[in-house]
Amino acid sequence: MDALERIDAFWRAANYLAVGQIYLLDNPLLTEPLKPEHIKPRLLGHWGTTPGLNFCFAHLNRVIAERDQDMIYVAGPGHGGPAAVAHAWLEGSYSDRYPDVSQDAEGMRRLFRQFSFPGGIPSHVAPETPGSIHEGGELGYSLAHAYGAAFDNPDLVVACVIGDGEAETGPLAASWHSNKFLDPRRDGVVLPILHLNGYKIANPTVLSRIPSEDLVKLMEGYGYRPYLVEGDDPTAMHALMARTLDEVFDEIAAYKDGRADRLPMIVLRTPKGWTGPREVDGVPVEGTWRAHQVPLAAVRENPGHLAMLEEWMRSYRPGELFDADGRPVAEILETVPEGPRRMSASPHANGGEILRPLVLPDFRDHAVAVPVPGTALTEPTRVLGRFLRDVIAANPRTFRLMGPDETDSNRLSAVFEVTGRAWHAGTLPTDARLAEGGRVMEVLSEHLCQGWLEGYLLTGRHGLFTCYEAFIHIVDAMFNQHAKWLDASRRIPWRRPVASLNYLLSSHVWRQDHNGFSHQDPGFLDVVVNKKAGVVRVYLPPDANTLLSVADHCLRSRDYVNVVVAGKQPVLDLFGEEEAVTHCARGLGIIDWASNDAGQEPDVVLACAGDVPTLETLAAAALLREHLPWLRVRVINVVDLMRLQPPAEHPHGMPDAEFDALFTTNKPVIFNFHGYPWLIHRLTYRRNGHANLHVRGYKEEGTTTTPFDMAMLNDIDRYHLVMDVIDRVPGLRVTAAHLRQRMADARLRARAHTRDHGEDAPEVRDWTWPERRS
Amino acid sequence: MDALERIDAFWRAANYLAVGQIYLLDNPLLTEPLKPEHIKPRLLGHWGTTPGLNFCFAHLNRVIAERDQDMIYVAGPGHGGPAAVAHAWLEGSYSDRYPDVSQDAEGMRRLFRQFSFPGGIPSHVAPETPGSIHEGGELGYSLAHAYGAAFDNPDLVVACVIGDGEAETGPLAASWHSNKFLDPRRDGVVLPILHLNGYKIANPTVLSRIPSEDLVKLMEGYGYRPYLVEGDDPTAMHALMARTLDEVFDEIAAYKDGRADRLPMIVLRTPKGWTGPREVDGVPVEGTWRAHQVPLAAVRENPGHLAMLEEWMRSYRPGELFDADGRPVAEILETVPEGPRRMSASPHANGGEILRPLVLPDFRDHAVAVPVPGTALTEPTRVLGRFLRDVIAANPRTFRLMGPDETDSNRLSAVFEVTGRAWHAGTLPTDARLAEGGRVMEVLSEHLCQGWLEGYLLTGRHGLFTCYEAFIHIVDAMFNQHAKWLDASRRIPWRRPVASLNYLLSSHVWRQDHNGFSHQDPGFLDVVVNKKAGVVRVYLPPDANTLLSVADHCLRSRDYVNVVVAGKQPVLDLFGEEEAVTHCARGLGIIDWASNDAGQEPDVVLACAGDVPTLETLAAAALLREHLPWLRVRVINVVDLMRLQPPAEHPHGMPDAEFDALFTTNKPVIFNFHGYPWLIHRLTYRRNGHANLHVRGYKEEGTTTTPFDMAMLNDIDRYHLVMDVIDRVPGLRVTAAHLRQRMADARLRARAHTRDHGEDAPEVRDWTWPERRS
Repeated sequence: MDALERIDAFWRAANYLAVGQIYLLDNPLLTEPLKPEHIKPRLLGHWGTTPGLNFCFAHLNRVIAERDQDMIYVAGPGHGGPAAVAHAWLEGSYSDRYPDVSQDAEGMRRLFRQFSFPGGIPSHVAPETPGSIHEGGELGYSLAHAYGAAFDNPDLVVACVIGDGEAETGPLAASWHSNKFLDPRRDGVVLPILHLNGYKIANPTVLSRIPSEDLVKLMEGYGYRPYLVEGDDPTAMHALMARTLDEVFDEIAAYKDGRADRLPMIVLRTPKGWTGPREVDGVPVEGTWRAHQVPLAAVRENPGHLAMLEEWMRSYRPGELFDADGRPVAEILETVPEGPRRMSASPHANGGEILRPLVLPDFRDHAVAVPVPGTALTEPTRVLGRFLRDVIAANPRTFRLMGPDETDSNRLSAVFEVTGRAWHAGTLPTDARLAEGGRVMEVLSEHLCQGWLEGYLLTGRHGLFTCYEAFIHIVDAMFNQHAKWLDASRRIPWRRPVASLNYLLSSHVWRQDHNGFSHQDPGFLDVVVNKKAGVVRVYLPPDANTLLSVADHCLRSRDYVNVVVAGKQPVLDLFGEEEAVTHCARGLGIIDWASNDAGQEPDVVLACAGDVPTLETLAAAALLREHLPWLRVRVINVVDLMRLQPPAEHPHGMPDAEFDALFTTNKPVIFNFHGYPWLIHRLTYRRNGHANLHVRGYKEEGTTTTPFDMAMLNDIDRYHLVMDVIDRVPGLRVTAAHLRQRMADARLRARAHTRDHGEDAPEVRDWTWPERRS
Repeated sequence: MDALERIDAFWRAANYLAVGQIYLLDNPLLTEPLKPEHIKPRLLGHWGTTPGLNFCFAHLNRVIAERDQDMIYVAGPGHGGPAAVAHAWLEGSYSDRYPDVSQDAEGMRRLFRQFSFPGGIPSHVAPETPGSIHEGGELGYSLAHAYGAAFDNPDLVVACVIGDGEAETGPLAASWHSNKFLDPRRDGVVLPILHLNGYKIANPTVLSRIPSEDLVKLMEGYGYRPYLVEGDDPTAMHALMARTLDEVFDEIAAYKDGRADRLPMIVLRTPKGWTGPREVDGVPVEGTWRAHQVPLAAVRENPGHLAMLEEWMRSYRPGELFDADGRPVAEILETVPEGPRRMSASPHANGGEILRPLVLPDFRDHAVAVPVPGTALTEPTRVLGRFLRDVIAANPRTFRLMGPDETDSNRLSAVFEVTGRAWHAGTLPTDARLAEGGRVMEVLSEHLCQGWLEGYLLTGRHGLFTCYEAFIHIVDAMFNQHAKWLDASRRIPWRRPVASLNYLLSSHVWRQDHNGFSHQDPGFLDVVVNKKAGVVRVYLPPDANTLLSVADHCLRSRDYVNVVVAGKQPVLDLFGEEEAVTHCARGLGIIDWASNDAGQEPDVVLACAGDVPTLETLAAAALLREHLPWLRVRVINVVDLMRLQPPAEHPHGMPDAEFDALFTTNKPVIFNFHGYPWLIHRLTYRRNGHANLHVRGYKEEGTTTTPFDMAMLNDIDRYHLVMDVIDRVPGLRVTAAHLRQRMADARLRARAHTRDHGEDAPEVRDWTWPERRS
C-alpha cells in the first residue's frame, strides 16, 4: 500500500465504523450475513456529514506524521459524532479512555451498540468524545473555538471543519474575521476546511449554491487564500486532497516564518453521504438531503433495506481493514500518529491535563484602606483593573481578557500599563493601545468573545470576559452549552478540570439610566441558575475590596461558570481588606455598623445583594436610625447568591438553622436585589421565613433618566424601602404614618429635581453613611 | 441653491440639530452667545456616527423626490439617535407626532432639552423615534430587519446603514446572505450602506482596516455589487454620493426589471465625527475614536470648550438654515418628500397603520374527532400544519413561516401543498419544495429567522417562527429587545398595534432523548416571563385540538410575544373541538374524566402543563384509580401559564378565590411541569396553597436515551408521581407502602428494559387512558 492507499484504508475503516455505530447491535465484522436482530431498534445519528469528516481526518494524519505537526481537530458538523468516535477507536485512544471498548471485535461490538443508545454515548461530538473541545449539538461555534485554541499555542495547528449548514449561522459568519486577532509569532494557526455537501436538513445551503467565483471572493475577502478540493471520485479526491494539504502546510510554514501574510483555507466539496447508498426505494440519496441522517430506514423490518445495508458496509471491504480479531490492520495503524500527536489523544483537547494554575499576585496589595466604612467612594472595577494588570504581567502567555470594546469604558484601563489590544489588521497613528501579543481582545461580538474564551479555556488556559449586563444575553445559548459541557465533563473521569469561565458584568442595569431601556436587563442570572448547581456560581460584591476577593477566588476555581456583577461607578467602601475576605468566604453576613439590633432579635431585616441595592439599603437603614431610633434593624449583605439556596440544591447552600439565625423566621425581611425580584423567591421559597420575605428588584421599569430615578422607578430606593418597613413591621403603619408620608414626599421631590435639572439631587447623589460614633 | 447645495443645507441643519440635542438646554438658535447655563448638566449621546447618518438621509431624500420612490431608513448605528430625531423634525413628522415639539424655536428648544434627559427621549433610535422599525441599543440586527421589511413589499426600498462596529457582530455577518431569500418580483429591495468610520468605542473596526480590495471581494462574495464613496471633503462627497446613488438606483431598477441579477450596495467611508471638532486639548478628535460619544466634555465648566462648541455649531451657519422663528428655511423644506413619502413618516415604519387582520379559516375544520378522550393518538403539529396551510393559502402576501430548516421535521409539511421554500440561489434537480415567492423561509440561523420576522411584523405583516426549544435561547437577546420595543410602543399613542411575534417550540426537551443533553433546555420560558406581563404569553397545549385553538388565538392577537410549546410526536387526544376551545379560553381547568373527586374536595390535586407531563399525569391518575380507587384525585391541566399568576402580576392572572377553588388551599398539589420546576413556584409563591405545592420538571438531568427514560431521569414519570402522591397525602406512606414499592420497582424495570432493548417498554410507550365506563 502506498500512502494514499493507506489513507483510503483509514477512511474506509472510519466510514465502516460510522455505519456500524448507526445501525448495528451485533455482528460487527459481518462474520455472518446481517439479520434483523443485528439491527438497532431505533436508528439514530447523522450519516450525511460523516464521510467528509473522516476524509479530512485521514488526510491530516499523514501531514501530522510527515511534519511531526502538533494538531487538533474541531468537527464543526459535530452531528457527525460517529466519525469522531471512529477516529478515536482507530487511533487506540478510545480504548485508552474506555478500556471496555477495546480495539478488537468485542470492543467494536460495544462501540457500535453504545452509540446513541440508552446508557451509551451521545450521537454528536461531545465531552465523552476523546480529542474534542467542541460539542456538536448547537451549531455555530466551531471556528471561534478553533481560534481560541490556537491563541498562545504557537506550534499548534487547529484544523476546523465547518459545515455549510453551520456556516449560515451568525456566530460562524463572524468568526472568519478572527484572523485579524491572530499573531503569527505568538499564536498557532487555524486551518478552516469549509465542507460543502450541499444540504442542511432538507434545504440546500447558501454557500454551496452561490457561484464558485463568489465563494472564492468571499474567502479572499475574509482574508484567507482558498484552495478548492471538489469531486466525488475517491481516488482522484485522495490525490487532490493530499497535494492540496502539502501546499497548504507549506504555506502555513511560510506564514509562520513571516514569508506569507495570509493563511490558507480549504473548500471541500463532496456529496452528502458520500459512499453511502446512491438510491433507496427509487429516489436518489447520496448527494441529497435524504442522506442527512439515516439513509436506510426500517432496516429491521425491510429485508431489501437490510440487504442494502450489508452491501453498503461490505463496500468498504472490512476484511481488508480489520483482522480476524477485529483489530485494525497494520497498514491502518501505521497511519496513526504517535501518542499525544494523535488528534484524538491531544492534551490540548483535554486542557485540564496541561492546565497550570495562574501565578496570582496577592490581591490584598490592591485593597482599599477603609478606616470608616461607608464614608469614602471607590470605583470597584478600577481597583480590579490593577489586580488584573498584575495577573497579566505574571502570566504573559496563559491569561486573556475578552470583551466587546469596553475595557477602558469599564475602567479596567490599568491593564494597558502592561499589555495592549490584540490586533493584526491595518493601523493608524490615531489608534491607541494596540500591541502585538496583546492580552486584551476586543471585538464587537459577544459571540466571538465567548467562543474564543471557551476554546482558550478548554485547551488549558485562563481568562475573563467583561460585558454589558444586558447584552450578555446574546450568548445565553453559548453559556448553556458550555455549562452542559462542564457538567458532563465532571462525570467523565479522564476529563481533567479546566479553568472556570469568568464573567464580569459591570455596565449593569442600575447604571444604564443614560443608555435607557434597551440596556437594562439583569436576567442573565436567571438563565445561569437554571444550570446544574455544581457548575454555576453568582457573586454580587458590593464594593472594591469584596470585588477583589471574589475575583481572586474565581481565578483560582475550576470547572465553574462564575458570574460577577459589579459596577464601574463609584460606590461606598464597606469592607476593609480582611473584612472583605471574611465576608466573601461566608458569602453573606450582617453589616454590624449599619445594624442596631446589637445581637438581639431585630424588628426588621434589611437584606441586599448588588452594589446599588446595597447603597440604597444602607441609606434606608440610616433613615430608620435617624427617624425611628428604637427600631432594631439588621442589615445583611449577600455576596454569594447561591448561599440563599438550601444545601440540597446547591453546594454553597446554607443550612436552614444558619439561615434562620440570620434572617429570623418571623420578622419582616425587605430584600433589595440587583436583579428580577422573583429570583430571590425562587432561591428561598423553601425557607422557614419565606412568607415574611418581601423582595424589591428590577421589574422592567426603565427609561432614559438618572441613577436614583432608575432606583425609584423600580421601588428599590431608600425612601421606598423605609415605606416598605413601615408597611410590614406591625404597628408602624399607625405610629410612623408621618414618616411614611415624608418618604413619599421625598420621592416626589427627587423626581421633580431630576426632571427639572437632569441630574440627581446632591443629597442622594453624594450620600454617605453618617460617620459612626466611636 | 442647486440640488447639492440643498442637500448640503439639509445635512448641515441635521448636524446642527444633533449637536444641539447633545449639548443644549436653551438658546437653540444661538441668538445669544452660549453660556454655561445653556448647557446640559450631563452630556450624553453619540456624535461619531451621526453626521454619516445625516449625510445618507439627506441624499436619499433627493432620490425619493426624483423617482417618487417608496423608501424607509434603517439606522444600524442606532446609537446615533440625534440624527434620526433631527430628520423627523426637519421633515415635520416629529411635530406631527409630538405637537409640543413644534417646528419653530420653542419646539427646537424642547427637541434639544428632551434628548437623553429624564422624562425625555432615549439617546438611541427607539420606538419613540418616528420612521424607525429598529432599536439602536443592541447592535447586530439592522440588515435582518431591513430584509424583513422588504419581503412582500415589491415597491419598497429599505435603505439600511450598517456601522462598521455592528458589522463585527454575528447576526449582522450572517445577514448579508439574506439576498438569497429575496424575490426580485415579489419583494422589495434592500440597499445596504456600510458606513466605515474606522472606530468602535475605543478600537479600530475590522472592516475599516482590511485592504480595500479584500473589502470589495467580501461584498462581491456576499453577492452584491459594491460602490465606494470615500472622502472627507463635503463638496466632493456630495457630488460623489449623488452620482453614486443615481447609478445605484438605476441598477435597482434594472434588477427589478430582470435586467440585472445582483443588487448594489454602498461602502461609505467618512471620518468619525465628521465636521466636528478636529482637535480638543491638543489631541485629534475628528476621525478618531475620541469622537464616538461627546467630543467636547465638561462644556459647562470649561470656557474653552464652551467656545469651541459655539464655534462648531456656528460652522453649520444656522442663520442660513432656520428663519428667525426657528423654522427650517424653504430650501430645506423643498428637499423634504411629500406626506408618507417622508421616510420619517412612512406607514411601513409604523406597521400597525397598514396592518390588515389575517383572513383566518376556521381552525375547527381541522379539529380531530375525539369520541373517547385519552384513547387515540395524534401528532399535534401535523394537524396544525393543515391549518397553517389554509392560513397561507388565504393570505398569500402577508404571512410567512420562519425556521431553521425544520418545517418538515416539525411535521408542518402540509404547508408545502400550497407553497414552497423561498430560495434565490442555485438549484439542483434533487432539491425539494423550493419555490419563487415561497412562504416558508428556512435558514440555519435563528438570528435571521427572528430578525426577518421582526422586520416583517413591524412593517405590518404576520408570521410564525418554529424552532427547537433548546436553541431558541440563541435569540434570547433579540426576544428581549423586541419585547421591550413592544412594551415601549404600547405607551406611544401614535404607534399602532402590530401582529404578535409567535413562536412554536416543538422539538422540545422531553423528545430530545435521541439528540441528547445539548438539545434539552426548556429555559426560554424563564427568559420570557421576565419581560413585562403586558407583552408576553406562554401556552402549553397538551393535544392537537388545544394547539389549534391556541394557534388561532395567537394569530389574531396584537403586540404580544406568544410562546407556544407543543410536540410533534403523537400524543393522546384529550379535548374535543368545543372542549378545546373552552379549555383554552379558560386557560386551565379540571379534566373531569381523569378525575374522581366528583365535585367534592379532592384528597390530592395532580396538575400538569405540557404534553409529556400531561400524559404522565394522566397515567399516574389511572394508576391511582386502579390501585387506590377510594382516593379522590383531581387532575388539572394548564394551557395558559400566565393564569397561575395573581391578577396584579399579569392580565391573565386568576383571582385567588378561583385559584383556591381549583387547587384547594390545603391539599397536596403535585404539579408536573414541562420546564424548570421553579418557574411554577415563582408564578404561584403568593398563592394560599403554595406550601402544599410540589413541582416536578426538568432539572438538567439529560442524556441520550428514550423518551420515558428522560421522564424518569427527571422524576416526572407516572410512577414517580404516584410515589409523590403517597409521600404527600397524609397516611398513605403507611397504608400504601406496598404500592409505593411497586412503583419504585416499575421504574427499575423500565430502566432495565430501556438499557437492554434501546427503546421504551410497550406498556409505557403505547399507554392510553383506560376507556371510560359509559
